[in-house]
Amino acid sequence: MSHRPALALHGGAGVLPQDRFPADLAEALQADLHRCLAEGWAVLDAGGPALDAVCACVAALEAIPWFNAGHGAVLNADGRVECDAAVMAGDGRCGAVAGIRSVRQPIHLARRLLEEPGLVFLAGAGAEAYARRERFEPVDESYFITPQRQAELAQARQLGTVSLDTAERFGTVGAVACDAQGRLAAATSTGGLTNKTPGRIGDSPVIGAGTYACDDSCAVSCTGIGEVFLRQVVAHDIAARLRYGGQSLPAAVETVVMEQLPPLGGEGGLIAVTPAGELVLAHNSPSLYRAWQRAGDPPRAAIF
Amino acid sequence: MSHRPALALHGGAGVLPQDRFPADLAEALQADLHRCLAEGWAVLDAGGPALDAVCACVAALEAIPWFNAGHGAVLNADGRVECDAAVMAGDGRCGAVAGIRSVRQPIHLARRLLEEPGLVFLAGAGAEAYARRERFEPVDESYFITPQRQAELAQARQLGTVSLDTAERFGTVGAVACDAQGRLAAATSTGGLTNKTPGRIGDSPVIGAGTYACDDSCAVSCTGIGEVFLRQVVAHDIAARLRYGGQSLPAAVETVVMEQLPPLGGEGGLIAVTPAGELVLAHNSPSLYRAWQRAGDPPRAAIF
Repeated sequence: MSHRPALALHGGAGVLPQDRFPADLAEALQADLHRCLAEGWAVLDAGGPALDAVCACVAALEAIPWFNAGHGAVLNADGRVECDAAVMAGDGRCGAVAGIRSVRQPIHLARRLLEEPGLVFLAGAGAEAYARRERFEPVDESYFITPQRQAELAQARQLGTVSLDTAERFGTVGAVACDAQGRLAAATSTGGLTNKTPGRIGDSPVIGAGTYACDDSCAVSCTGIGEVFLRQVVAHDIAARLRYGGQSLPAAVETVVMEQLPPLGGEGGLIAVTPAGELVLAHNSPSLYRAWQRAGDPPRAAIF
Repeated sequence: MSHRPALALHGGAGVLPQDRFPADLAEALQADLHRCLAEGWAVLDAGGPALDAVCACVAALEAIPWFNAGHGAVLNADGRVECDAAVMAGDGRCGAVAGIRSVRQPIHLARRLLEEPGLVFLAGAGAEAYARRERFEPVDESYFITPQRQAELAQARQLGTVSLDTAERFGTVGAVACDAQGRLAAATSTGGLTNKTPGRIGDSPVIGAGTYACDDSCAVSCTGIGEVFLRQVVAHDIAARLRYGGQSLPAAVETVVMEQLPPLGGEGGLIAVTPAGELVLAHNSPSLYRAWQRAGDPPRAAIF
């Protein structure tokens, strides 16, 4: 059976309303989203696996400083970088890392763990030692840090806030894909929250919370207030609504994102795809930086 | 509406078959299981909350050296202790810690996070710094380490294995409870796997994987090969089968533990409770060290 390839990515949930969003910034941002989408689409278009497509998108997003992942990740309360990432294939293989500050592309380290039969999730110094053993070239922490993130931390410290990304800096990144064989995959990468407690792990690297894929239902990548997404096990909850409740993907996402999360303070959004190549991108925040494409259709990007 | 209080605990999944299990050891073990159960039962019996009951059970189990949690936790490949723990109340509050080696009772630190509105999950040095700020008295890592665990690590290194607990040392600990108000809670604490990769996080501290509770469905605490439980998001999957699939708790647990996990290498088991006080304790491993009680019935303990 041939499936219709589909791919979506996000660059996080944004808080700035449309009427205050600079037009030139919106244009530059959408150009970057299109460019990162094209990296993953090239994989699917060549008949490649969903897993490679989502990793290609997320790696491209990690390299762009205004997204909060890899280069340009936000800073914790100690002024340090702690990157988290996870990737899951619809066959159940997955890998996740937390507290990374010496691996250029955290998603590649998560992918390496996905290939390890006996390991899924590594954190902190142990994860970085694993990276060295696996011959990931170490990068200095200064690679991740940008003047914008330093200024945001200074502001957050002054205000005493622990926040999602502000105005002109974008958020957590992620991608979901369905390939021509109907295989699914999801990947997410983040620097977490500005001024976060050191050692804090949000939903992004937690399989089932911020990242989940199963070929029987859907693949999901989330972004938003991680603690609420953790408590609700959001990504697996979407899949379970399809698998056990017979809900459609749009109905499941609508219920979770628009009804369940807001009263809990769960500002944010998610992207998801089914084995039929059905895509849903939803957010209860003012914006979700996103792009998507299905075979036969042109690529699209949107902010609000 | 009055609910029937119920409580269950586990001390991990064991690999030794019944005919090779020393009778005097079984007796001593069951006495300890009863003693830890009584700690939690006293809370429920006095009309206290399920959350306090599961924390009391797990704290008692952590203090006993032959269980793999707190004092007596297994050692990682560097010969170091890295304790993980999580606790969740059925109202959605939860807390989790990973990589702890200076807090006497890791479950108490997880509980402290549960009380924090803006935090859920902390790992490593950041988690320990948080513990210091919260005035948890630091303990030396030597508090956790026992000669038995050192001998097990030496053996594992010789054999090149990363293993569940062997013969006479027991496993991950956990508890689930339903109180007289029908409130649920689950808690889990572990040292992980002997000879594990430093920084490795298993299912125990991951909300949805090894630990989950929701008052609409059930509370679950797992034990076993953590990576498989992580991939299957086991604890939340059990709850989702009830919530969306209308399955009974016994049917859901039977399907997951006896049918779904074994072909994936998911040796282990779990304990679960519903708001009606229905208890299910199941394992696909040779044994599950366990004890349980329902209001009006005497306490019970079992191994096989």
